Formats: sequence, structure tokens, C-alpha cells
Amino acid sequence: MPARLLPALALTLLAVTLHPAQAAPRTSAEILAASSAADWRRPDPDNLLRMQLHAGRPPILIELAPAFAPKHVANIRALAREHYFDGLAVVREQDNYVAQWGDPDAEDAGKQKPMKSALRSLPAEFARAIAGLAITPLKDGDVYAPAVGHVQGFPVASSRRLGKAWLAHCYAMVGAGRGDTADSGSGAELYAVIGHAPRHLDRNVTLVGRVLQGIDQLASLPRGTGPLGFYETAAERAPIQTVRLASELPADQRPAVEVLRTDTATWSEYVEARRTRREDWFIEKTGRIELCNVPIPVRVPKSTEP
Amino acid sequence: MPARLLPALALTLLAVTLHPAQAAPRTSAEILAASSAADWRRPDPDNLLRMQLHAGRPPILIELAPAFAPKHVANIRALAREHYFDGLAVVREQDNYVAQWGDPDAEDAGKQKPMKSALRSLPAEFARAIAGLAITPLKDGDVYAPAVGHVQGFPVASSRRLGKAWLAHCYAMVGAGRGDTADSGSGAELYAVIGHAPRHLDRNVTLVGRVLQGIDQLASLPRGTGPLGFYETAAERAPIQTVRLASELPADQRPAVEVLRTDTATWSEYVEARRTRREDWFIEKTGRIELCNVPIPVRVPKSTEP
Repeated sequence: MPARLLPALALTLLAVTLHPAQAAPRTSAEILAASSAADWRRPDPDNLLRMQLHAGRPPILIELAPAFAPKHVANIRALAREHYFDGLAVVREQDNYVAQWGDPDAEDAGKQKPMKSALRSLPAEFARAIAGLAITPLKDGDVYAPAVGHVQGFPVASSRRLGKAWLAHCYAMVGAGRGDTADSGSGAELYAVIGHAPRHLDRNVTLVGRVLQGIDQLASLPRGTGPLGFYETAAERAPIQTVRLASELPADQRPAVEVLRTDTATWSEYVEARRTRREDWFIEKTGRIELCNVPIPVRVPKSTEP
Repeated sequence: MPARLLPALALTLLAVTLHPAQAAPRTSAEILAASSAADWRRPDPDNLLRMQLHAGRPPILIELAPAFAPKHVANIRALAREHYFDGLAVVREQDNYVAQWGDPDAEDAGKQKPMKSALRSLPAEFARAIAGLAITPLKDGDVYAPAVGHVQGFPVASSRRLGKAWLAHCYAMVGAGRGDTADSGSGAELYAVIGHAPRHLDRNVTLVGRVLQGIDQLASLPRGTGPLGFYETAAERAPIQTVRLASELPADQRPAVEVLRTDTATWSEYVEARRTRREDWFIEKTGRIELCNVPIPVRVPKSTEP
């Protein structure tokens, strides 16, 4: 047992001794405060994108999910390595739905930004085999899927009957925009969920990852006034300065972001605390939690921010 | 049957005649386009708030729900009539949670804005008797409540065992902030949901209504950097120019906003279309819809916007 948990354990034992009926379960904040280094993980730098929208603001950090979308992740890595996204823009901002970024001229073969090694379309990766996945189940049920839970820091839905699992469209999840056909996406046009989870998109679009930091920057942009929330003029778009794969950066410039592991006793205790809302403010303790209402904690040591 | 539906009906009959197996159900857009005047209602002007944040932008319109929070609605009407909100501000903007507005000095008895006839605290109205409510049920289930549906344009959860019904914290719902005790709210401090539905707040705060128009203005404000997303300086706050009850305005200045009725055959067909996503783009037709993913359509004739 990690050393940092000992003081909290000692206090708990004391409480049990003194007030056996009143030993209060910990709140989620208390659980996180007492977590150990082993409860957290650093994303693989090959799975970590650093997107800089505005100079002087913290970068937006996105963790990619190759376990669910290996082809798209490989292509996004290729796009980042060739600096494809640099100088592109957030082109769409639809309220209670998505922020979307990519090449404003993507539909114009004469003007679109060239790609070097990356591909312009890929087979869909809407779902994968459930076999081989260690899903931490969430017991509260779900309107959209037979089962839900978490895998490696991502919200996941699954069906034993189908033998499939897929990433779920929770807030801050990132997907690969596509056209009318399943295999028309590539990862060159990405979106992040900025509203109530549009779970009807599950298994209709390839999800590729999750915004770990900076979703607020994407969610607070002015809404586009064109159809589907696309900006109507170039001036409205939010320019992207750079997108870099962390593994391409010098070691001392790699974001030191950490994500709470979702396969530990600490995680399970944390979810239970979020479910039962032990804070005094809550009068009606819900006792239930929906997949997209489970925040997946992220921490960034201050020294890594510009 | 309203006249405007006839062409669509005629087309449907034709399709049935020619291709009996292929008569396509209508999409939600087609259903709304073919709706009749009787499918829509104008909110009672005593239940309609017009909040002006920025000059030159459309006003934010909020429909109050006296069937669920009669005391809070009466107090909010009193606050609006005494122009209490004029010159106050959005004081909190927490990402994926709420925008909150009121008196920045509310906690300081020496500096707080005086009230004339309005009250500073009210008994909680977290839930009401289910008896007397005509709930249009939503059959898809819910993680948080035994039953869900819609009443008079609002998302509602209920429990027959408890004999209670309550408004649900979906996107754009408006609630009355409170302190640590259940009866510490009044409607003088209001918040709107700007992220994934925080349903754990259901029955913990009094919900008072829903933003019909302009939630995008509240959702796209910069996020506050203080604890709980409160702005740390006065300069960051978004000032409120005016809040008026529509019934206080001259008849020709009352917003002509209309809301789709939630107790009609058109509503039921619309929800079914949202559930099954008949648009060709959707490859996996979900066949399920969660309460807060049912958009409640609002239309505003262009001539009423400034």
C-alpha cells in the first residue's frame, strides 16, 4: 500500500475505534487528495497531442485511444508529424454539440492543404471486439447500451450479444468527422463534444480520444451562425497555431499531464463517492451516476504550463 | 386536421399507394416543417423573462415553470418587476456545468442590492405531487429516475412510489442557486445548465424554468478561474443590462417566441423520429433516446429580434 495513503488510513481506523457507527466514507475530493502516485498514469507521448490555439494560454491536450481506433490514431500521428494542422482552424462551433477543426478548404480539391504521408480517408472504426479489453464496469445502467464502464481512462459502452465495445460520446470526447459514408473520415477533421453527450453518434462516427485539458477553450468559442454551426466567414474561425505529438517534442517540453487510472481500488472508491455525493450540500443523495457524469480526473503540475 | 399538414399527408398516401413497403417515416425536420399552428404555443407572458446581456444581440428568453416552483416563480416575477436584476451580472461560469447570475455582493449585508417586495429566501420546491400533472412519458428509461417525460415543454422525472415529480437538470434548464440549507434560495441568484446534464442536482435545487433562446450566449462566456468557476475580478463578469417580465412590456414588444407543444401527436412523432434518426447519415440507428437528448423546439419569428 502506498505510503501517502497511510495517514488517511490511520485516521479512518481511529474514527472506527471512537465512533464505530459514524465512520464517514470519504468524499471524492478526499479520495483524490489521498491518492498515491500509482493511482495516476502519464499518457504515452505517442498518444498525446498538444494543440495550441491562443498564444499565452495553456495548450489543449488530447489523449488518443489506439486500443479503439488504431488506424485513425496512426493517421492523426502522421498528420501531426507533418504539421498538417498548423495554420488550420476551428471551423464549426455548434451550441450544445461540437467544436470542429480542420482545413476550411478541405472540400475544395484545388485549394485543400496537401498531405504528405497521411491518408484522406480510412475504414470506419466505430466499434471493436470486446475480447481483450479490461473494462471497469459502471453498475448504474445506461439508456443507450447494454453495459458501460471505463477502459484506460475512456468512457466505454459495450454489448456482449454483439461482442463489441465502443467509445462513448461524453463531454470532451474527440471524434473524426466524416461525410455520408462510413469510411469517409480520416482524422484530418476532428471534433470535440462541448454539450450534453450526443450518444446517438456512438457507433456512427469513429471516436479517437479525449480532451484532457483545455476543453473550456473549445467550449467557450462564439457559436457559428451558419448551418450546423459552421462559421460563415474566415474571420470568425479560431486559428490553430500548432498541433504536436508529445513524442516529437524534446523530453523537457512534453506536457506532464497525469490521468487517474480507471482500473484501481482508488477509482472504484472515487466513482462510489461521486455516485453517493457525500458532501453535506447534497440533501437528496442520488445513489446513481450516469456514464458521462463521471469526471475522469486529470492533473497538470503547474510548472508545465507556459 | 390542420390544413398545412394536408400536402404531406397527400404525399404519404401517394407513397403508400405506389410503394407500400417503402413509405418512409418522416424525419424530425420534415415533421416540424409540416407542423400546424396548433402544434405550437406561446408562453404566458407572466412566465416569460427577457434578459438582455449585450446590446445588439437577441435577448435571452427564459420560460418559468410555475407548475413546479410556484413560490420561486412568484418571487422571480417580483424581482423582475422591481428591476432587481438590472445592472447585476453573470458572476460564475463553470465549464461543463453552469452559468450563474445575480448580485456579486449578495453575501455582503452592507453592500447587497436592496429588494423591495421580493423575498431573500424561500422554502425549497425540489419536487411536487405527481397528481394533477399530465406527463407525456418517454419510454426509453433513465439512469436517475424511475420514469421521465415532458410536461408543458419541460423535461420531467417522476416516481410513482414517492408520488412526486420534478424538473430535470437538462441543458438550458434554469435553477435557483442556494446555500447549504434547502430553503436558502430565492430566485435572486439563478443558474443555467451549460454542459452535460448534472442530474445529481435533481431534487437538490429548485429548478424554475428553461432558456428558450440565447443559451449559447450564456454557454460561450469565458470560464471563471476562481473556485467553482466564479470570476475573480469584477471586470470578468458579464453585465446584465435588463431583465423584464414579458407581461410588463407593451404588447408589441413582447417576444413572439413559440415552443412546440409536448402533448400532441406531432410531438410523439417528433420524438420517435429523434429516437430512430431516419436521416441517411446515421448508419447505426440507435432506437433509444435519453431525456436530455430530446431537443424541445423553439421558434422565434425574425421580426421580433432587435
